[in-house]
Amino acid sequence: MMAYPPRGFPKAEFQARLKRAQKMMQDANLSALLLTTEPEIRYFTGFLTRFWESPTRPWFLIIPLSGDPIAVIPAIGAHLMQQTWITDIRTWRAPDYTDDGVGLLCGTLVQLTERDGQIGVPDLMESHVRMPLSALRELENQLKPRQLAGDAAIVRRLRLLKSDAEVAKIGAACAIAERAFARVDQIAAVDVPLSQVFRHFQALCLEEGADWVPYLAGAAGQGGYGDVISPATDTPLCSGDVLMLDTGLVWDGYFCDFDRNFSVGKPDGTFQTAHARLMEAVHAGLALAKPGAVISDLFHAMNDVVNAGSDGSDAGRLGHGVGMQLTEWPSIIKDDHTLLESGMVLALEPAVATGDGLLMVHEENIVITETGAQFLSDFRPQALREI
Amino acid sequence: MMAYPPRGFPKAEFQARLKRAQKMMQDANLSALLLTTEPEIRYFTGFLTRFWESPTRPWFLIIPLSGDPIAVIPAIGAHLMQQTWITDIRTWRAPDYTDDGVGLLCGTLVQLTERDGQIGVPDLMESHVRMPLSALRELENQLKPRQLAGDAAIVRRLRLLKSDAEVAKIGAACAIAERAFARVDQIAAVDVPLSQVFRHFQALCLEEGADWVPYLAGAAGQGGYGDVISPATDTPLCSGDVLMLDTGLVWDGYFCDFDRNFSVGKPDGTFQTAHARLMEAVHAGLALAKPGAVISDLFHAMNDVVNAGSDGSDAGRLGHGVGMQLTEWPSIIKDDHTLLESGMVLALEPAVATGDGLLMVHEENIVITETGAQFLSDFRPQALREI
Repeated sequence: MMAYPPRGFPKAEFQARLKRAQKMMQDANLSALLLTTEPEIRYFTGFLTRFWESPTRPWFLIIPLSGDPIAVIPAIGAHLMQQTWITDIRTWRAPDYTDDGVGLLCGTLVQLTERDGQIGVPDLMESHVRMPLSALRELENQLKPRQLAGDAAIVRRLRLLKSDAEVAKIGAACAIAERAFARVDQIAAVDVPLSQVFRHFQALCLEEGADWVPYLAGAAGQGGYGDVISPATDTPLCSGDVLMLDTGLVWDGYFCDFDRNFSVGKPDGTFQTAHARLMEAVHAGLALAKPGAVISDLFHAMNDVVNAGSDGSDAGRLGHGVGMQLTEWPSIIKDDHTLLESGMVLALEPAVATGDGLLMVHEENIVITETGAQFLSDFRPQALREI
Repeated sequence: MMAYPPRGFPKAEFQARLKRAQKMMQDANLSALLLTTEPEIRYFTGFLTRFWESPTRPWFLIIPLSGDPIAVIPAIGAHLMQQTWITDIRTWRAPDYTDDGVGLLCGTLVQLTERDGQIGVPDLMESHVRMPLSALRELENQLKPRQLAGDAAIVRRLRLLKSDAEVAKIGAACAIAERAFARVDQIAAVDVPLSQVFRHFQALCLEEGADWVPYLAGAAGQGGYGDVISPATDTPLCSGDVLMLDTGLVWDGYFCDFDRNFSVGKPDGTFQTAHARLMEAVHAGLALAKPGAVISDLFHAMNDVVNAGSDGSDAGRLGHGVGMQLTEWPSIIKDDHTLLESGMVLALEPAVATGDGLLMVHEENIVITETGAQFLSDFRPQALREI
C-alpha cells in the first residue's frame, strides 16, 4: 500500500495564495476579484464537493484587496464551507426566483470597494463566468459606477505554479492510474466490448485509490484510432487492435491526465513504428523542459519528431497544464511563449498519424523543477504493452 | 441481466426537437439560437463525450430559424461530430491565441441572420454561457447591429418534457443504481472508512452497468448528518450511524438522482421516526403528481409533512427535475408554478431535521404520465435497510 500525502492544505498555504493574489490585484488596480467556478473557488478556500455537477445554483467568492475571502453562497453549502478556513460566509436560500443571490453579492461588493472600483472577473481563455447571463447583466447594472473588468490573468498566473503539496497530490493521482494501467490485462482481451473495458477500468482506478474518475476516453482499432475524445462503443476488441485508454482520475481534488496504448495480440509494424516515434517525441520534449525554456520550445521539439514540417494536428496542441482541472493553461502550441518555471505541471501529449484519418497518441505527466523536469507518470519507453 | 433500451436516438427525434425549437424561435422573434454548454449541444446533436471536462476549448451550436443545426467546433471534435446526424460542421484548430473561434462563429451567424436579427442565448436560471467573457464581449461587438438576446426559455421548455426514449434511459440509470444500492451490505460495515464505502460504491455502480458515476455524495453520523453535498472523509462507520449515499450515475448520457439511507446496526428511534416521516412525504408528493397540478402543490404537500409551518430548509427545495443533468428545472419550491405535464421527470427529495444541525434526506425519481406518476426508482416504503 502506497503512502498518500495528507489531504487538504494547511491554512498557511491558502493565506499565501491570497497574499499573492492581493499583490497582483494592487498592481492591476483591481478592488476585488469575483470568482464563480469550481476550481477558482476551491483554489482560495479548499471547498471540495461534487455538488457542482448540479447547475442550479450560482456560487460566489470575493477576494478583497485586503482581508480574507468572503463566500457568498447558497445556504445548502454553508455547513461544508464552515469546515474550510473561510469565516465570512453569507448565504441565501437558493434557488430564489426573485433574486438568486445577485442582491446579496452586489451588496457585499459595494461594502468592500470604492465607488470607482474595478472588480476583476476571470475573462480569458479557459475561463467562463458560471452564472446566468441575465444575472451577470443585472449585477453589472446594480454595481454601477463600479465596473466588472478582467482579472489581469491573476488566477491563471497563480494556478500555473503548483506548490509542493499540490504536486504531491497530482503525483498520488498518477500513481493510482499507473497501478490501474498495470492491471489492464485483467479486464481487456479479444472479444471483450470496449464499453466493458471502460467500465472495468474505472472500477480498477477506484480500487487502486481514486476518489473519482471524472474522465476516461479511449479507443481501439486496427492500426490506430479516429479520435481521442469518443466514449466507448460496444464493439469487441479484435486481435491486432491498438487499445488506448486516457484517464483523468482525481485524488483529493487533483487530476492526473495521461494515457497508455496496448497491443491486442502481437503488435504490427505500424504500431511499433508509431510507438517508437511517440517515445522519441516525449524524450525530445522532456530534454528541453526546464526553467528558462518557453512552451513553444517543447512544441517544436515534439512536433519535429511526430509531424515534421506541419503546424500541428487537429488536436491543436501537443500537451497542456494539469492540476485542479483535467487540462489547464498553458497549451503546448507554437504560439505559447510562457516561460517554464519550477512548479509547473504539464502533460506532454504527442500524436502521430498512422494512416488515413487514424492516429496514435501518447501522454505523460511531468513537473518542472529547479534543474529540469521529472516524470510524475511512470515513463517506460521500452515497454510495448501486449494484452 | 436486464435488457437496456437502445443507445442514442433515431434521427427523427432530433428532427422533432429542432422543429419544436424553430416554432418557438419564430414566436419569440429570434433569428437563431446560440448554444455553448454540453447538455444544450447534446440535446440537438447527440454529441456525447466526456471531453467537456477540459475547460480549454469553447464549442458552439447554432440553431437557425430554418434548416439543420450548424456545429462551430474545435477540429479535435470533428471526427466525433461526424458520427452524429449533423452535417454542417465548421472547425478551427483550437486553441488559437489570436482568435479562438469567435471569427468563425460570428461569420456563420452573420450568414444565417438578418442585420437586425436577435440571436437567442440561454440566459435564465440554471444556465451559463460557456465561453470566456472577453470572447463573448468580442462576439457581441462583431455581431452588431445584430444583438444577443435571451432564449425566451426555449431550451428549458423543450428539455422539461422528456420523450419515451429519454425516460427509458433515465429508467435504465435508476435500475443500475438500485442494483448497486442492493449490494451496499457487501461494502459497508462497522469500522469501514466512509471514503472506502464511496470508492467501492462507485465501483458497484460501474459493475452494475453505469457508463460513469459523475456524482456521489453522502454522509454518515449518529442520528443524521450535517449536509448532503460533502465528499467522504476517512472516518470509519460506527454502530448506530445513519449512512446515506446519493448517486447521480449516467447511462447513455442520462442521469438518475436518488439516495438511500442505511442503518449501521439496529436503527434507533430517531431514525425510525424520521424515516417514517420521509416516506409519508414522498407519498404525499406522489399523490398530487399528475398533469394539471403545479410544482408548488408538490412542495406544500411534502413540506407540510416534514417541515410544517416553515418555508423550507437550507437545501432550498424539496426536489427538482432530472435528465441530461443531475438536476434540472423545475425546482420544487413554493414559488414554482410550473404546470405538470406528461413526460416530466422529477426527483422528490424531502428532508427532515433530526437534531441540532442534523438532517435526513430521502429521494426518489418519478415520471409524470397522462394519468398520474410512476416511480423510476424502486420506492419501498416499508424497508428500513440495516447493514
